[in-house]
Amino acid sequence: MTPSPASASADSAAGLSHGRVWNFSAGPSVLPMSVLEEVQHDLLNYKGQGMSVLEMSHRSKVYGNIISDAEATLRRVLKVPDNYSVLFLQGGGTGEFAASYLNLMASKAVREKQRKLGKPLKCDYLITGGWSKSGLKEVKRLGANANVVLDGVKSPSTGETVYNSLPPVSEWKLSKPEETAYVYYCENETVHGVETPANFVVDAVDPSVPVICDMSSNMLSRPVDVSRFGAIVAGAQKNMGPAGVSIVIVRKDLLERDESDPEVTRNLPSVLDWCYFDGAGSMPHTPPTFSIYVCGLVFKWAEAQGLEALSKLRDERSNMVYDEIDAHPEFFNGLVDKKYRSSMNLVFTLPTPELEAKFIAEAAERNMVQLKGHRSLGGIRISLYNAMPVEGARAFVDFMKEFYDKNH
Amino acid sequence: MTPSPASASADSAAGLSHGRVWNFSAGPSVLPMSVLEEVQHDLLNYKGQGMSVLEMSHRSKVYGNIISDAEATLRRVLKVPDNYSVLFLQGGGTGEFAASYLNLMASKAVREKQRKLGKPLKCDYLITGGWSKSGLKEVKRLGANANVVLDGVKSPSTGETVYNSLPPVSEWKLSKPEETAYVYYCENETVHGVETPANFVVDAVDPSVPVICDMSSNMLSRPVDVSRFGAIVAGAQKNMGPAGVSIVIVRKDLLERDESDPEVTRNLPSVLDWCYFDGAGSMPHTPPTFSIYVCGLVFKWAEAQGLEALSKLRDERSNMVYDEIDAHPEFFNGLVDKKYRSSMNLVFTLPTPELEAKFIAEAAERNMVQLKGHRSLGGIRISLYNAMPVEGARAFVDFMKEFYDKNH
Repeated sequence: MTPSPASASADSAAGLSHGRVWNFSAGPSVLPMSVLEEVQHDLLNYKGQGMSVLEMSHRSKVYGNIISDAEATLRRVLKVPDNYSVLFLQGGGTGEFAASYLNLMASKAVREKQRKLGKPLKCDYLITGGWSKSGLKEVKRLGANANVVLDGVKSPSTGETVYNSLPPVSEWKLSKPEETAYVYYCENETVHGVETPANFVVDAVDPSVPVICDMSSNMLSRPVDVSRFGAIVAGAQKNMGPAGVSIVIVRKDLLERDESDPEVTRNLPSVLDWCYFDGAGSMPHTPPTFSIYVCGLVFKWAEAQGLEALSKLRDERSNMVYDEIDAHPEFFNGLVDKKYRSSMNLVFTLPTPELEAKFIAEAAERNMVQLKGHRSLGGIRISLYNAMPVEGARAFVDFMKEFYDKNH
Repeated sequence: MTPSPASASADSAAGLSHGRVWNFSAGPSVLPMSVLEEVQHDLLNYKGQGMSVLEMSHRSKVYGNIISDAEATLRRVLKVPDNYSVLFLQGGGTGEFAASYLNLMASKAVREKQRKLGKPLKCDYLITGGWSKSGLKEVKRLGANANVVLDGVKSPSTGETVYNSLPPVSEWKLSKPEETAYVYYCENETVHGVETPANFVVDAVDPSVPVICDMSSNMLSRPVDVSRFGAIVAGAQKNMGPAGVSIVIVRKDLLERDESDPEVTRNLPSVLDWCYFDGAGSMPHTPPTFSIYVCGLVFKWAEAQGLEALSKLRDERSNMVYDEIDAHPEFFNGLVDKKYRSSMNLVFTLPTPELEAKFIAEAAERNMVQLKGHRSLGGIRISLYNAMPVEGARAFVDFMKEFYDKNH
């Protein structure tokens, strides 16, 4: 009565087996079919251990191997240098908004820099959409001396602030390096569909200033030069696994602290403290065991293909949809400047709200779901994460063509 | 190839089907077989939705129903009064150490009391074992004006502090009610096997002072009068579900704040802020969707039996093991004062470390695992949570008898 093992299924063709649909959710989002099948297969009895991973002590040898394998695989996939720690935490992207600020401000180097300056260092934020905006709000709440480097762009028609492009680097208001604790940005904005090109920000920032990048929604979708970053933070539930685990990749020198000064961690709860996790293999207390296990399977799946191949597939998927948008711009209105449009979350509108409703309803009849734009933006959004087979994007494009023909 | 649905299996007899073992882990720990089977059955396609819960948007209607059903079921099972909020958070017990302190100190009533007093209120901690000790350490780190109400008991032989009993209430050093922000205790200490009887603490504390109880390891194992508590906090991974979700049941008046004063939440990251979750149905951002789903299934399983029945089963399981311990006290040395010994985590030693190693090894041959005492205490610990069938405890007792006969 147990299901077939993972190896029995080919991901690319499995999207619509088992009565499944094309799931274009922005997150939590589609997982590789082979991962789900392996999880299902081992759910009552993990590899002869007589129990589910859901029930497994995090102090057992078997679980110790699961989490250390997950870390080792992620390190290989992303080519994480040895002077970086890889941590598994809880609290999602929102937790890491606070954690990034609190940990950086607790770092010895940052505190010494601040002492030298004699006044609070600036925390530089690039606001490129809803998610980085929330990050800024969180650190302001916690008392950060925040500086807004950029805040979207002005709409040429209305003069209002909109998040569909980035201003040129020459217009960015970066603080002076000697006055900056860190620079923070979100590389892919899932709500607004804006993606910052690789290395665009690190190239613009003085190398003495650590750059913190939220890669929640595009991690593992393309190669990344980890060595350019102070820290990379990400919730797992887009490209890496289920909700409930966050991944932090942080340069080890930023974890150095003056342990003799209790004020260093006065505002930093343990559960957000990167050092607390770093010193204990991500298990100073019970980690989100099952979510990490599933992430580990996704990492192995990603490793088997390689980031270069995943990156090509990502471009193939998103390009075919953008090509269809660009073929009929009067009907499919892409919301984002072509230079910065996301390969993960594609946002566009149709001529009328009625047509959008019809589009969503007819797509659902073809087993394509989660197409509605974020409530703050409206329109259509489809998310094409790593685990979405090219066939899913193709099915969507076929539907776009058909819908255009019937309704334009 | 899909597995049989949940209803096909009887929990009580299913412990050793599917090649499973008796899992006496202190947490994460055994789950009801029917829950695991339902999870497995629906893993690729949740009830015809065409996707796994692992992949499901938390903003979808289907997931909205999953989380609101989970909350409603827990409310029914625990008879949670309407003036209490039920929240699902991340960060485990450690997260709630900090959250309890930070949220209570942000509460309007507590801040007004403190203003009236003209100096920092006391946070009263009962230290009954390793877990409450960690709770105290965390709030001291965050700057709490902590008062230790009790710290285990003095060993009559060595005079050292030990955690195997509680001092009489007459010796507790509770702060004056008008000087106390809250009283905190952990009702069941998983490491030391000490359990505080129901209402023992709330009966001793002035009713004007909110009592915060960590019920991580005995929640749902007996009826509880929620109305006696300011807040009940718990990590799920003992009696309620998988790791990665924490449950908070908090009296709503304690969530009232002076919103005009930003200092109120200056040290309170959103991810630990009970109000942030309360205002958004536990979903101000992506919750640990899958863990909450599994908890919801466990709540339904608990509801089907009722807390009274679960409480009887718990006593049946633990009493049969304690009876065997008490029958041969020179061989099985129960570590805890009978009045306070835990019905969840039973700790004892054997005459020698060699016998303990032999005991653990021979138990493993009989498919009984996770018997080793916590690294700080040594000896044997078996955990008998809700989902452990009585048959599991019986198998263990049979083994104890056999081992005693051969080795005493």
